Amino acid sequence: MTEFGLIEFAARLFADADRHGWEAIGDDCTVLPVGGGEVIALTTDMLVEGVHFLRDATAPQQLGRKALAVNLSDVAAMGLQPVATLLSVALPRGAEDGWARGFIEGYSELSHREGVALVGGDTTSSEHGIAINVVAIGRGAAGHVKRRSAAHTGDMIFVAGELGASALGLADILAGRTDTPYAAVHRNPEAQTAEGVWFGGRGEVHAMMDLSDGLASDLLHMLRASSCGAEIDVGTIPAVGGDVRAAVCGGEDYKLLLTAAPEAAVALSRDFRARFGRELYRVGRIIAGNPRIRWIERGAEIHPDWHGFMHF
Amino acid sequence: MTEFGLIEFAARLFADADRHGWEAIGDDCTVLPVGGGEVIALTTDMLVEGVHFLRDATAPQQLGRKALAVNLSDVAAMGLQPVATLLSVALPRGAEDGWARGFIEGYSELSHREGVALVGGDTTSSEHGIAINVVAIGRGAAGHVKRRSAAHTGDMIFVAGELGASALGLADILAGRTDTPYAAVHRNPEAQTAEGVWFGGRGEVHAMMDLSDGLASDLLHMLRASSCGAEIDVGTIPAVGGDVRAAVCGGEDYKLLLTAAPEAAVALSRDFRARFGRELYRVGRIIAGNPRIRWIERGAEIHPDWHGFMHF
Repeated sequence: MTEFGLIEFAARLFADADRHGWEAIGDDCTVLPVGGGEVIALTTDMLVEGVHFLRDATAPQQLGRKALAVNLSDVAAMGLQPVATLLSVALPRGAEDGWARGFIEGYSELSHREGVALVGGDTTSSEHGIAINVVAIGRGAAGHVKRRSAAHTGDMIFVAGELGASALGLADILAGRTDTPYAAVHRNPEAQTAEGVWFGGRGEVHAMMDLSDGLASDLLHMLRASSCGAEIDVGTIPAVGGDVRAAVCGGEDYKLLLTAAPEAAVALSRDFRARFGRELYRVGRIIAGNPRIRWIERGAEIHPDWHGFMHF
Repeated sequence: MTEFGLIEFAARLFADADRHGWEAIGDDCTVLPVGGGEVIALTTDMLVEGVHFLRDATAPQQLGRKALAVNLSDVAAMGLQPVATLLSVALPRGAEDGWARGFIEGYSELSHREGVALVGGDTTSSEHGIAINVVAIGRGAAGHVKRRSAAHTGDMIFVAGELGASALGLADILAGRTDTPYAAVHRNPEAQTAEGVWFGGRGEVHAMMDLSDGLASDLLHMLRASSCGAEIDVGTIPAVGGDVRAAVCGGEDYKLLLTAAPEAAVALSRDFRARFGRELYRVGRIIAGNPRIRWIERGAEIHPDWHGFMHF
């Protein structure tokens, strides 16, 4: 059974269970409406030594920041403010002291920078490798929640930053060039938390998610959830170093992908630039039809073999 | 650095962080007041193959139930209703299929019995052993939350069931007697969820927690949190099979430990019996002074070498 097979198996077993107000699984976070017009949102990620990181190749401080950042990105992708996390750590002999301290230092450093509390967790020993589980908790107005399923035909599609730097950095690291600027981006991903909350407050923004597996893969998830298609103008993709393949297929950029009402697109881009001093990139539009991406280059559809990045 | 050393290190690093309304760590769950006079409570536990279980010695269905039960018990210990969980699983080659299915089946079975939704999670591969992280989420009235720190001098101390069966079961299993009734209790712990919610609604119940490490250890945590002492009448401890050491030092009973105003003790016991058809056992009282347990046998203090169970 693959990762997705197991998730589907669990989903079938739980299909008839009372959800107590929690929304269905399938977005970056699961959302619970609470009192006062607010919601709580939760997301979780598990990182395993030898699969997600190599102990000798990654500084523990960096891994601490990265483990947190990817979860904060999921909260930001809902349009909500990350407020707290839970952290579970299993440590084999030899990692209990220096490694664990370094990890917690990095985790704490980014937590402070993002204003996120650590409100619970678990620590245990391990017979083999390190295992880490992070839960991030977001909070905000119910009306600010942005879902993958909310793209409308005619919406403009935007990405909130340049794409591909992390993939280029991974290529650098694998080639032994561990000190390039791209390698640093790969090791220190940043969640667009301020941007996510800002988009949450913009009613013209419809669907949103974060780009963790690459545009080719993640946009498809959004299209499936929204039952529509997309046209992407390849020439407008903000590809780092001009490498469109890295920008489209590369994972771990953690930039926000969103759609917005076409009549508000100009104002949204202008206000984003005024607020963040950077570009909001318009890369295409939502079209009616099957969940499929039409890649358009100089006005004509092309058929590249672009697929997303599989973590598993 | 030990388990507690790492937790203290993290607590120091986060001492100055904005908690966004979340209560301090130190109880069975961490609690967030939300709108409408309600709270959300969260708890998490990580289970690692070779440390918490042996793949060949534990049926995956049983482990699925147990991994959930211990977290539901933490929610019940706050006086709150468990409503949902998040489940992360890391699976090595060979465990992806049959083992994982069995685990999810057991987890789902108990989730349905307890009316708890699965609202998120993560699955990943693993190079070595299985690692599991469960998060349980409770919800309820803010006024129903029971904390470890709320014991008052003069309170009566109760346990909500017999103690020691899990420790006797573990001893049976280690001696090769794997099919005794106690062994079954050890493998299939039950969370007192209905009892916890019921105690939550009783204003005369002050402090509460669940017994995971044994009365000798857990009561001390309550006394430290409440800045008081306790006298336990050894003859009143509901020890399974008359084995007081197993009852006091044994872990994983998951019965509720609580204190209540002395004038309400009789009514509380009577109403508990009427509601659940079982005994609420009064085992002692809270006294002023240092956080220390005075074990009283036939009116005189004794000094047994009773210590709690260390999971780590």
